[in-house]
Amino acid sequence: MDKEIYLDNGMATRPSERTIGKMIPLLTEKWGNPMSPHKKGQEVFPEIKEGFESIYGLLGAKEDDDIVFTSSGAEAVNHIVNSLYYDQTLEAGRNHFITSNIDEAPAIMAIGKLEESGCVGKMVSANAQGAVTADIIADALSPRTALVSLDWANGLTGVINPVGEISELCEDRGVFCHLDASHILGKLYFDLSKIKATHITFGGDFFHAPRGTGALWIRGGRHCSSFIVGGIEQAGLRAGSYSVANLVGLGSACKEAIDARDFLCTETARLRNKLEKGILKGFHEAIPFFRDQERLPNVTAIAFPGIINEYLLFNLNKRGVYASIGGGSFQQIGLVLMNSGIEKNIAHTAISFNLSRETTDEDIDRAVEIITEEAHRAKKLSFGLEL
Amino acid sequence: MDKEIYLDNGMATRPSERTIGKMIPLLTEKWGNPMSPHKKGQEVFPEIKEGFESIYGLLGAKEDDDIVFTSSGAEAVNHIVNSLYYDQTLEAGRNHFITSNIDEAPAIMAIGKLEESGCVGKMVSANAQGAVTADIIADALSPRTALVSLDWANGLTGVINPVGEISELCEDRGVFCHLDASHILGKLYFDLSKIKATHITFGGDFFHAPRGTGALWIRGGRHCSSFIVGGIEQAGLRAGSYSVANLVGLGSACKEAIDARDFLCTETARLRNKLEKGILKGFHEAIPFFRDQERLPNVTAIAFPGIINEYLLFNLNKRGVYASIGGGSFQQIGLVLMNSGIEKNIAHTAISFNLSRETTDEDIDRAVEIITEEAHRAKKLSFGLEL
Repeated sequence: MDKEIYLDNGMATRPSERTIGKMIPLLTEKWGNPMSPHKKGQEVFPEIKEGFESIYGLLGAKEDDDIVFTSSGAEAVNHIVNSLYYDQTLEAGRNHFITSNIDEAPAIMAIGKLEESGCVGKMVSANAQGAVTADIIADALSPRTALVSLDWANGLTGVINPVGEISELCEDRGVFCHLDASHILGKLYFDLSKIKATHITFGGDFFHAPRGTGALWIRGGRHCSSFIVGGIEQAGLRAGSYSVANLVGLGSACKEAIDARDFLCTETARLRNKLEKGILKGFHEAIPFFRDQERLPNVTAIAFPGIINEYLLFNLNKRGVYASIGGGSFQQIGLVLMNSGIEKNIAHTAISFNLSRETTDEDIDRAVEIITEEAHRAKKLSFGLEL
Repeated sequence: MDKEIYLDNGMATRPSERTIGKMIPLLTEKWGNPMSPHKKGQEVFPEIKEGFESIYGLLGAKEDDDIVFTSSGAEAVNHIVNSLYYDQTLEAGRNHFITSNIDEAPAIMAIGKLEESGCVGKMVSANAQGAVTADIIADALSPRTALVSLDWANGLTGVINPVGEISELCEDRGVFCHLDASHILGKLYFDLSKIKATHITFGGDFFHAPRGTGALWIRGGRHCSSFIVGGIEQAGLRAGSYSVANLVGLGSACKEAIDARDFLCTETARLRNKLEKGILKGFHEAIPFFRDQERLPNVTAIAFPGIINEYLLFNLNKRGVYASIGGGSFQQIGLVLMNSGIEKNIAHTAISFNLSRETTDEDIDRAVEIITEEAHRAKKLSFGLEL
């Protein structure tokens, strides 16, 4: 088999060796429960402090903001949506929840579930540029809106939403604004005094943290009730003893993400562009989407007209090139693209390639070769007819 | 400082070395997301299968039962209570939830939270033997009862509830029955064809699994909606990518818990009894509770009349003896004992000692020495006056 070329970093990234190394002592020696009022429990305090400080650092959070360590980004999103049901719907009668049709499943489904309790979910449509704009949100807002929940950027297309304007609109209208920052952390520079979101969530899977990590940021002064209740862990915001090892891993990955941000924005962006150009050169019909938009530096979605994307992905997998068409918490990329007005028979030929700081020039050269070979081979077999 | 003697295994146990060893490859090499339809994701399938099989094994679960891997026991308890709100309250109008006043905080608080949504929580009282009986539950049941949620055994006193009778009563009355098995796994033999519970939850902290692990068992044929929504992970029962390393760790710990069960029931029980006798001999006023009851083999709660338990615990900590008076998801042991009718000025002098398979004769000998020394010293200082 060819050397493996991993371009599916929107689903999972390789946990960094340094990060795993920092976790080991917490698994083997410092295994106490920090809620225990004795030395065995308390010996992990410094590591807990450092872990949280690193998360604050990556977000540029202030001291009076709250950060809750969770077991995944999905848990953090569910936390927010549920808390706002308790805090806004039950307390203040606000029962209107807005998200978009290119968002990921946790927000869409958590809001959908609230409909069983008398809430109304509103799913706005992205525009033809693959983005959700402040105008789109403004049209959807109502006096009963409790929450606008959006992905900061789409993990499959890389398109970045204008969250500065959107969050400012929300602030003006007194509406809570949740941004899922999973795909932008370590890839974008931002300033939370300018982005007016009230809540931010993310999973650690996308910047080389260990699996099973995530967090929820709450702007200082915004009350947020807990989701998993039943203990005073994390200032009562999340009950249950958590893995300090995983917290330490997430913290370490946050630090590394800061250090690697410039590299992602320049070198990885160059490799992403090289991938697009290489594929276009080798397979002229290919359509890379949203190249004129504000995009993440490491993501591209490319259609291969006439080729069912699942078939191409399957064959790329056999050659050791790993990419994505969605799944898991993602929607299928075909649906995401159709939601931006791309025709069905093009949308369902698209594949998303997601690079990381570990992607090399050699990876991209080889990937271009394999992808164009496999695209030509698939095209010959006329799979397009079945689209 | 003296050698550390860890008798707080109801808060956390040392993760077994073999278990951590099995996790490492999942942290460093096999880090893919199993939802990814390519080799890097799929290479973890064998480990996932083995992990779940081991959990099934420890519970003696059947193939058509469901098991959901969670990030803690608290999450699993919240899952159950919330699902039953959706499945029973919203669907069938059953809005009455029963738990007991010696249960742990997650069940009590999750039920309390439902009261904001129009549910009624009923907290029954334990009897003078520290247990909740079927008669007590029978008195509390109503035609609108959705759920009876109880700890299988109390982790601070060790008293085992008669869950066979209670679960049978629930089955007869068509009421769901959730048992928190956190403290009995690896310590009790049981048969889920005789225990008629519909749901069982547990955290891995109490049998040498890594922190941040738990699970929820659902009897075959019982529908249970999801708590963290937004993905098709775990057959849609829990969204979000989880740590396969932690699942593997939990599975490995389950296997070891089965192997160690006889040892716990005999050798560890002997050491627990030795601890009680030693303390009684060295400090005559000591009162070990519930010795005539069905108890866990590794737990004892002992009062030291005239000594505030926090003060004694503090001094034991300084000498390297770690025990518990509750906290975290536990209620304070003083409250647990008072809920069984123990007088306040005795209840708040009690300390819970929780042994593990790693506790040795030498540990117990030394612990007895230190505990009696410190009890006499504290007694002299007449702290009892402030009780």
